[in-house]
Amino acid sequence: MSIKANNEKIVGIIGGMGPEATVDLMQQVIAATPAKDDVDHIRMLVDNNPKVPSRIKAIIEGTGESPAPCMIEMARGLEKQGADFLVIPCNTAHHYYPDVAAAVNIPVFNLIALTSDSVKKEQPDLSKVGLLASSALQKIHLYEPWFEKHDVQVLYPQQDDQRAVMDLIRAVKAKNQTVEQVQAYNRAAQNLADQGAQCLILACTELSVIGDLLQTFLPVYDASKLLAQAIVNEALGSE
Amino acid sequence: MSIKANNEKIVGIIGGMGPEATVDLMQQVIAATPAKDDVDHIRMLVDNNPKVPSRIKAIIEGTGESPAPCMIEMARGLEKQGADFLVIPCNTAHHYYPDVAAAVNIPVFNLIALTSDSVKKEQPDLSKVGLLASSALQKIHLYEPWFEKHDVQVLYPQQDDQRAVMDLIRAVKAKNQTVEQVQAYNRAAQNLADQGAQCLILACTELSVIGDLLQTFLPVYDASKLLAQAIVNEALGSE
Repeated sequence: MSIKANNEKIVGIIGGMGPEATVDLMQQVIAATPAKDDVDHIRMLVDNNPKVPSRIKAIIEGTGESPAPCMIEMARGLEKQGADFLVIPCNTAHHYYPDVAAAVNIPVFNLIALTSDSVKKEQPDLSKVGLLASSALQKIHLYEPWFEKHDVQVLYPQQDDQRAVMDLIRAVKAKNQTVEQVQAYNRAAQNLADQGAQCLILACTELSVIGDLLQTFLPVYDASKLLAQAIVNEALGSE
Repeated sequence: MSIKANNEKIVGIIGGMGPEATVDLMQQVIAATPAKDDVDHIRMLVDNNPKVPSRIKAIIEGTGESPAPCMIEMARGLEKQGADFLVIPCNTAHHYYPDVAAAVNIPVFNLIALTSDSVKKEQPDLSKVGLLASSALQKIHLYEPWFEKHDVQVLYPQQDDQRAVMDLIRAVKAKNQTVEQVQAYNRAAQNLADQGAQCLILACTELSVIGDLLQTFLPVYDASKLLAQAIVNEALGSE
């Protein structure tokens, strides 16, 4: 019996960064799939591995081991198990995207490229975008090359506000975020609006998990939701 | 680099029956894990495969192909990928438990044994238990041998009420359950109480997904939640 029940493609998810963000993505994939019964849903092979070395430690603190070897091992495992394409539901982990993509023989979706292209397509006149993301992502300028291609400037919350965003991300991972932390996060979003951001991107899958808590008058794009839709389109062969 | 980061065990989930039930289980595992950061969570290898042939068609209608070969293939794939033990988050699919357990060299948790033993332990004086489950499960008497061991009689909703439960399960899979269906489901629960059930078991992972919608004065045990706790205990080596 072949692993393939039909022409649909099987997605492999290099997950666990964090574990809840991966579950959130799976839920969004299920919600985005037109389905009347189990069989209409797409197959997902998931390695929800919270033991991947911390991206924050490796990139910001410079003390931790590189997550790359672990991510490569997971990618190869999923490929061997029958995945047709891979995704990484963690924005910051895309620092290691080239390593992972080079290690397997199947396509690996680039969440950063996908998100920036989708946002530009939705907002053709965009010139300034605000990122709500880990400070690690800011440090390595992950989104800049992709948005520069579209002549879009990337903005981050200013110092104290960015610290508040980072505190909230850590709190979501520990599942103990406070009302005050969420308020400070919303001030960071306001700070991006004050700087002239025309829309915001939730560019951290932990912030996607608590997407409902963001209050802003700006349009918000959730990288995780964009990824979910891209997975469904690829698996079903739709546009 | 080894797949194992420490002494914790890795769970393999033979999932997709249905896809949302598997995501629900993963969420319950995450919630049941004492964790302050990503790394404290346990690793889950998940094959969320909604293409497993329908248990309902195979068992009730007698027309569908057997899910066993597909489940065996999934089990072997997860074992090869590094799982230390396997679980099947679908009560009815345990009809094929012996086939799956015999096909791999790692333990496969028996959800039916685990649920009945846990419920009996919590309710030592139990003599009558009510099952809210698929009609397929009733047809094959999946829970009876395990509860007979404890001198506990298994009750099901009477005909029309059982039909209402089955309708709701199908509706949850199609994500279009109505208020009327939920009301009929609650009448089925009342019917079990009228028959003398001392507690109820959510013995279908689709019913676990909508666990909050059940209104009853009886104690309710959710097989999926019991499985989540057993996974965490096994992975962390705790009791």
